[in-house]
Amino acid sequence: MKAYIISIGDELLLGQTVNTNASYIGEKLSDLNIDVAKTSVIRDNASEIKDEFKIAWNISDVLLVTGGLGPTHDDITRNCVVEFFNTKLTFSEDVLDNIKALFKKRNREVTDVNEDQANVPKIAQVIRNDKGTAPGYWIEKDAKIFIVMPGVPYEMEGMMNSFVIPRLQEMTGDKQGAVKRLVLNTTGIPESYLFEKLGDLDEILGEAKLAFLPNPYGVKLRITVKGDDEGTVNNKLIEVEQKIRAKAGRFIYGKNDDSLESVVGKLLEERDLTISVAESCTGGSLANHLTNVSGSGKYFDRGVVCYSNAAKVEILKVNEDVLIEHGAVSREVAMQMAEGVRSTSGTDIGVSTTGIMGPTGATTDKPVGLVYIGFCDEKVCTARKVVFGGDRLLNKQRTVQAALDLVRRHVLGISVDD
Amino acid sequence: MKAYIISIGDELLLGQTVNTNASYIGEKLSDLNIDVAKTSVIRDNASEIKDEFKIAWNISDVLLVTGGLGPTHDDITRNCVVEFFNTKLTFSEDVLDNIKALFKKRNREVTDVNEDQANVPKIAQVIRNDKGTAPGYWIEKDAKIFIVMPGVPYEMEGMMNSFVIPRLQEMTGDKQGAVKRLVLNTTGIPESYLFEKLGDLDEILGEAKLAFLPNPYGVKLRITVKGDDEGTVNNKLIEVEQKIRAKAGRFIYGKNDDSLESVVGKLLEERDLTISVAESCTGGSLANHLTNVSGSGKYFDRGVVCYSNAAKVEILKVNEDVLIEHGAVSREVAMQMAEGVRSTSGTDIGVSTTGIMGPTGATTDKPVGLVYIGFCDEKVCTARKVVFGGDRLLNKQRTVQAALDLVRRHVLGISVDD
Repeated sequence: MKAYIISIGDELLLGQTVNTNASYIGEKLSDLNIDVAKTSVIRDNASEIKDEFKIAWNISDVLLVTGGLGPTHDDITRNCVVEFFNTKLTFSEDVLDNIKALFKKRNREVTDVNEDQANVPKIAQVIRNDKGTAPGYWIEKDAKIFIVMPGVPYEMEGMMNSFVIPRLQEMTGDKQGAVKRLVLNTTGIPESYLFEKLGDLDEILGEAKLAFLPNPYGVKLRITVKGDDEGTVNNKLIEVEQKIRAKAGRFIYGKNDDSLESVVGKLLEERDLTISVAESCTGGSLANHLTNVSGSGKYFDRGVVCYSNAAKVEILKVNEDVLIEHGAVSREVAMQMAEGVRSTSGTDIGVSTTGIMGPTGATTDKPVGLVYIGFCDEKVCTARKVVFGGDRLLNKQRTVQAALDLVRRHVLGISVDD
Repeated sequence: MKAYIISIGDELLLGQTVNTNASYIGEKLSDLNIDVAKTSVIRDNASEIKDEFKIAWNISDVLLVTGGLGPTHDDITRNCVVEFFNTKLTFSEDVLDNIKALFKKRNREVTDVNEDQANVPKIAQVIRNDKGTAPGYWIEKDAKIFIVMPGVPYEMEGMMNSFVIPRLQEMTGDKQGAVKRLVLNTTGIPESYLFEKLGDLDEILGEAKLAFLPNPYGVKLRITVKGDDEGTVNNKLIEVEQKIRAKAGRFIYGKNDDSLESVVGKLLEERDLTISVAESCTGGSLANHLTNVSGSGKYFDRGVVCYSNAAKVEILKVNEDVLIEHGAVSREVAMQMAEGVRSTSGTDIGVSTTGIMGPTGATTDKPVGLVYIGFCDEKVCTARKVVFGGDRLLNKQRTVQAALDLVRRHVLGISVDD
């Protein structure tokens, strides 16, 4: 089964919106072993949209279209679908009820343009939208499937999960042969170092495939194994994973969708440890990552964002003389911040960040990108020096990642050196 | 001039990486009035890559390719370029020097696989990579331009800004006619309400075009004006902007790339106001947004992330009886948190957030999505109640956006009602 994903919208081509929909859909289809052959982005232009429908219809079995279903004048996908399938619009009472219920929940009146969204292509089965007003369409014709969903990501995601995926799963069943993918998430090692550390890939992989997916926070290793039956594929996957872990295990913090913060959270929860954070340069981002994990209230007590030196002294009890002698961006202050937040909050672990994120703030001996990350628990109080690059937001994110990895390594008793 | 953007990489089709490159490039080209006709994503498959090169080469003047230039075995773009142009590889001393310098800066040894990246297609002019090891290629042939860049976003962005954009600008000059786009960023009003509020679009727009770009935090309005000369186009754009502002001005917080946090930061700085934040449900994200703005140290003093009730009492001086009587998620506690952080830090403004982000934590009378946002300055101390949806991360981000907008409206003296 071959899939083609079409995203519609000038805003995607003009770069004002990032096309997260195609990758979201691609991931879900891959999980079903449906091969995504190609994705494209097309303008809000009726003839170009219909032309692309034709191209995709000819070379794929499943066609997924997002965008252009909204209530305003620039939403033309519905009419393109009507013309492509040579069908007409029909009024759906269910869709109108859904729209009315949605507005009622938000204490707002239904508008005329929203009411018009209840008119849907006659050939289509309606996909209910739990999170917005635009219904989706499921169309089957000539043994092919044509799916249309809104471009608003969480509305599309809702439809994928509640309707499209279960339906496709039902239809494909076990017909696709056995394919398994596993992603190992690493941090703290550059792509080429990881590549060399793994050594002879043929020995590790055999028939399996390995892809290196670098991003600013680390490199993801994607292993793909294909075979006739699930048992063989699973065994091969375990074998490859073990060989990779034997070579680069301490850089691997998790699998697939695991975020570093969820891994750290799990480690803390399992060990019944609590944590508090004192942030200067990361400005709240470290606390934000930790609290993105549902249930983080069990181990996360508090965070303090101390931009001013006064706040560092008042809330974190950093010694003023140390601040003056070494400066706010120093190993000593990082350690005092970590210990300060730990002792004032009474948590098991205190973590801190202090650094120069740029573009301003550098001095002759302290460049943009210089960061100290403090870690204190009942046994150690230490700080790690890291030097990142010149981009402020990237530096904040990399510092958060390094701080979380420092916690992971300390809790697991792994070396904190590179 | 017509452009076609090709992104290469299984990870994009499998959904493991979101294709931010295409939108970044699309935006830059649009700024140059170069029309992006289409973008596509292709697998790491040599024949499919070369086929797509052919299709794009036939229908476009500028072809931009990203991905597959890395140092590992799954990077095959370089060889596809060599075959497509029927050229060969040649060694570049400059590229090797650049790679060596980069590794030296990071205190690491150059690996063999990185050295091989200094072999480049003979037909290409090298685009220097300041942020990574893979060089880019600029190829001109038959009055067309073929550009190849790495898939790592910040490496590609570096090349776009230092080389590709200036070069394209030089080549296109004023030949493209006058086109101007303006995006007005709104928050706090749903798409259909905004649409109705604007009323008769023909009266507002005339020959101009308007697109509604909804996202979970607000709706962006993109105005496009085309014409023969820049003067006419500019005047028309100002006229449309004024008409839109007359109808929905208080929901518009900024233009184009303006983020709400940078707008709020500018307002605070201009008025010489300082701010501190007390976060419960947003977990550091509000402070993180404020400190994403370079120079935020001038007005942002501190943030406190108080997940535990103990922290709310200790650091923010929230009254324990009030906590018990009304619960942590209440108007009263939101106000006390805002006032507490304001008075302990001595800033002009204190802002707070407390709510139930989900998926857990709801009670019979307090659903997931319920949020109180506190605001106190020397004149008022108030809290606003908002009800969002069921998604934890979306709720955090929406709360941050609503809190920032509350500050914006208070500082500007605009009504805080919807």
